[in-house]
Amino acid sequence: MAESYDIIVIGAGPGGYVTAIRAAQLGFKTAVVDREHLGGICLNWGCIPTKALLRSAEIYHYMQHPGDYGLKLEGKVSVDAAAVVKRSRGVSKQLAGGVGFLLKKNKVDVIWGEASIPKAGQVEVKETKRAEAPKGARGAGTYSAKHIVVATGARPRVLPGIEPDKKLIWTYYEAMVPEAMPKSLLVMGSGAIGIEFASFYRTMGAEVTVVELLPQILPVEDAEIAAHARKRFEKQGMKIITGAKVTKVAKGADSVTATIEADGKTQEITADRLISAVGVVCNTEHLGLEKLGVKIERGVVVTDGLGRTNVPGIYAIGDVAGPPMLAHKAEHEGVICVETIKGLHTHPMDKAMIPGCTYCQPQIASVGLTEAKAKEQGREVKIGRFPFTGNGKAIALGEPEGLVKTIFDAKTGQLIGAHMVGAEVTELIQGYVVAMNLETTEEELIHAVFPHPTLSEMMHESVMDAYGRAIHI
Amino acid sequence: MAESYDIIVIGAGPGGYVTAIRAAQLGFKTAVVDREHLGGICLNWGCIPTKALLRSAEIYHYMQHPGDYGLKLEGKVSVDAAAVVKRSRGVSKQLAGGVGFLLKKNKVDVIWGEASIPKAGQVEVKETKRAEAPKGARGAGTYSAKHIVVATGARPRVLPGIEPDKKLIWTYYEAMVPEAMPKSLLVMGSGAIGIEFASFYRTMGAEVTVVELLPQILPVEDAEIAAHARKRFEKQGMKIITGAKVTKVAKGADSVTATIEADGKTQEITADRLISAVGVVCNTEHLGLEKLGVKIERGVVVTDGLGRTNVPGIYAIGDVAGPPMLAHKAEHEGVICVETIKGLHTHPMDKAMIPGCTYCQPQIASVGLTEAKAKEQGREVKIGRFPFTGNGKAIALGEPEGLVKTIFDAKTGQLIGAHMVGAEVTELIQGYVVAMNLETTEEELIHAVFPHPTLSEMMHESVMDAYGRAIHI
Repeated sequence: MAESYDIIVIGAGPGGYVTAIRAAQLGFKTAVVDREHLGGICLNWGCIPTKALLRSAEIYHYMQHPGDYGLKLEGKVSVDAAAVVKRSRGVSKQLAGGVGFLLKKNKVDVIWGEASIPKAGQVEVKETKRAEAPKGARGAGTYSAKHIVVATGARPRVLPGIEPDKKLIWTYYEAMVPEAMPKSLLVMGSGAIGIEFASFYRTMGAEVTVVELLPQILPVEDAEIAAHARKRFEKQGMKIITGAKVTKVAKGADSVTATIEADGKTQEITADRLISAVGVVCNTEHLGLEKLGVKIERGVVVTDGLGRTNVPGIYAIGDVAGPPMLAHKAEHEGVICVETIKGLHTHPMDKAMIPGCTYCQPQIASVGLTEAKAKEQGREVKIGRFPFTGNGKAIALGEPEGLVKTIFDAKTGQLIGAHMVGAEVTELIQGYVVAMNLETTEEELIHAVFPHPTLSEMMHESVMDAYGRAIHI
Repeated sequence: MAESYDIIVIGAGPGGYVTAIRAAQLGFKTAVVDREHLGGICLNWGCIPTKALLRSAEIYHYMQHPGDYGLKLEGKVSVDAAAVVKRSRGVSKQLAGGVGFLLKKNKVDVIWGEASIPKAGQVEVKETKRAEAPKGARGAGTYSAKHIVVATGARPRVLPGIEPDKKLIWTYYEAMVPEAMPKSLLVMGSGAIGIEFASFYRTMGAEVTVVELLPQILPVEDAEIAAHARKRFEKQGMKIITGAKVTKVAKGADSVTATIEADGKTQEITADRLISAVGVVCNTEHLGLEKLGVKIERGVVVTDGLGRTNVPGIYAIGDVAGPPMLAHKAEHEGVICVETIKGLHTHPMDKAMIPGCTYCQPQIASVGLTEAKAKEQGREVKIGRFPFTGNGKAIALGEPEGLVKTIFDAKTGQLIGAHMVGAEVTELIQGYVVAMNLETTEEELIHAVFPHPTLSEMMHESVMDAYGRAIHI
């Protein structure tokens, strides 16, 4: 007989496993199904291993500039590609193992295999050959669950004619485990994934060209921040072509040649490898959702903001439920979903309060509306800016470049957007997130005492600048 | 005839110059007097140059462990003490120059010399031989001002028999500009200043012993955080003796031998240099404050929380107005003071919301009540903890040690304290500061979406842990 659960979550990425753990905390008998890895793309092939790679790049950068810090290096520093990759894989493995531990500790069952939903209330799991089951996992079979949460994530989008081949044309999978450092690299797409790899490989010494279809790199970011970042990347020797389309890719023996159209002109660029980072598509297929009548629009499962689809008992959270496709959004959405199932008083997530981070050098972090979006909405805004050059800690760190930009609704004084580029901004942005969640106005932020000397003082100054009160510029 | 101002600020440290700039912003004709340096101790001999030194130490630490990041070093790394000091002095000089620029831009006059207050409304300035006047500064003379703000800061406390001699017994002045790196060092006092130097010199390779009178290092910090830090310091090879008193210091030709009493036992420790970091005393003398009848208690000028002393027209802010003796506290106090003079609606600063940071390795940051203080106040508390080991970014950075501790009032759910030790916590603490300023409860913090993967996620988890809801432990 089918084992029966209150909640089965399909997909053990951060959205999935956090949903399952929260469900268990709420007293639900819960299982999570996965076909390949605990921790999903994020822990295994995304956020986490790239952060490990980028840390190696950061340290390598420091080691190449000892004189900047009063240090002397007699000899030379080099990158051991295999060791860098090994470190990154080790970090992933440790954390994925941690997920197994957390699920067990919270009494969430793990079911291993390919899941589909033949009908509401039922999950069918078939054997998977992708990876071995973790110890103690249940196997193929039919399971029943009052509530089924789809958290199957997304995968790289493939452009026709530029299909990844694991050798010359990479997606993030191959880009994360290079056998050797390529000498030259072409990156298609300048979203977070493309730019992080571009930054990593550039720091490691490769000649890097980034091709972006839109006129702006990092298209979701504030234009001023993206322009600042672009200038810095170009100063580092990165070549960036925007408003450009890759029309053809010809493969050589150990290189690719891409034909690129921009401004009505055509050029060819040859590089050792090409990374295709042109977005992702949701994993909505093979689950049987269409058959059940679950509403899917433009590849995204439609939900009511609390995780409920149009079919009772079927829920969706994370990437499959639409952008922004970020682990922390997925996690929060999952928590809201199961708390709603529990009957707790929940609110749909306000997407304007979900921060985004890109871990290139310089780092980029933002939350809320860009200046352009705020103006598009017809809002009257007050804008504050503070440059890293005016900050003592930034100077002391040797990180004098960057910008903190804040956007307030001129009528209400409410903070509606914050955009940062520079050292450590991915760790700073949370202060603005907390502030926005509490519907903070400039007045309250001005009264907060930010510690000295920190980069975070710039967050304070930027707010004060919006009101003509900045001290250090 | 005496030049006449609305406001004269005595002392051009961060408290002083920020007060002056804010006063000018409010439309007051303002001058600031200093006898030695724009930017005060903080920019010239405190916060800023030490952060520059600690950055060199941080990079040196990375360079000694290239293998941890998949990098190879053939050869060796060494510290060029002169270059490290030169870098630090350069950072100070740049920022002190910046203060001159900001004062000029805001039309604040600089008066150069030793100030005293013969009577309310009058500032007498005598020539100083300590340093040359910055370009454009006014000189000695009598000036009048409706409002006089004393922001003269503090200086190192000197213990009898252990007087700094600039050669063997150092204060922070000498410790910041070593001619060569001492091979061994004895640090008296384990507050922020002592511990930062201990950490700097230990990382640079010196044998370091820290002697603390109280049973706990970093005495103002939460006991659990201090204990964690102590363990880490000891693992780095630092020797720490608490509950200990230096009873005698004997000077050799190029070393000192200290007699230390602890637990009824006496030991002698010989080291190249001794740093005396046993606190500071306020610079309240030579101003004529006593004569004017300004109330001073235990060396601290008594104010009403809005900067006003008992004598009309005389104000005090920053270190001279009492602890915590921190630049950001001084700045904020100064702003409140001149806004009060302006007649704006101001509130006394809530000292429970002033964060404190120590930039040793590991870093320490805190705001609000420690667990012990909260319990002393008879509060029922809920405590959350989250260890760095449970955080993906920490693992990816190679920084798996540390702790985030949060303290809530169990009755109201209000966040009343946050205490952190580990990588980058000095930049993280601001999120809790913002939250506390908005009188946040656990519920609101739990609803905030912290970006993944960041160290700041631990701030979220620690809050959830206080309410039995943590996911990743």
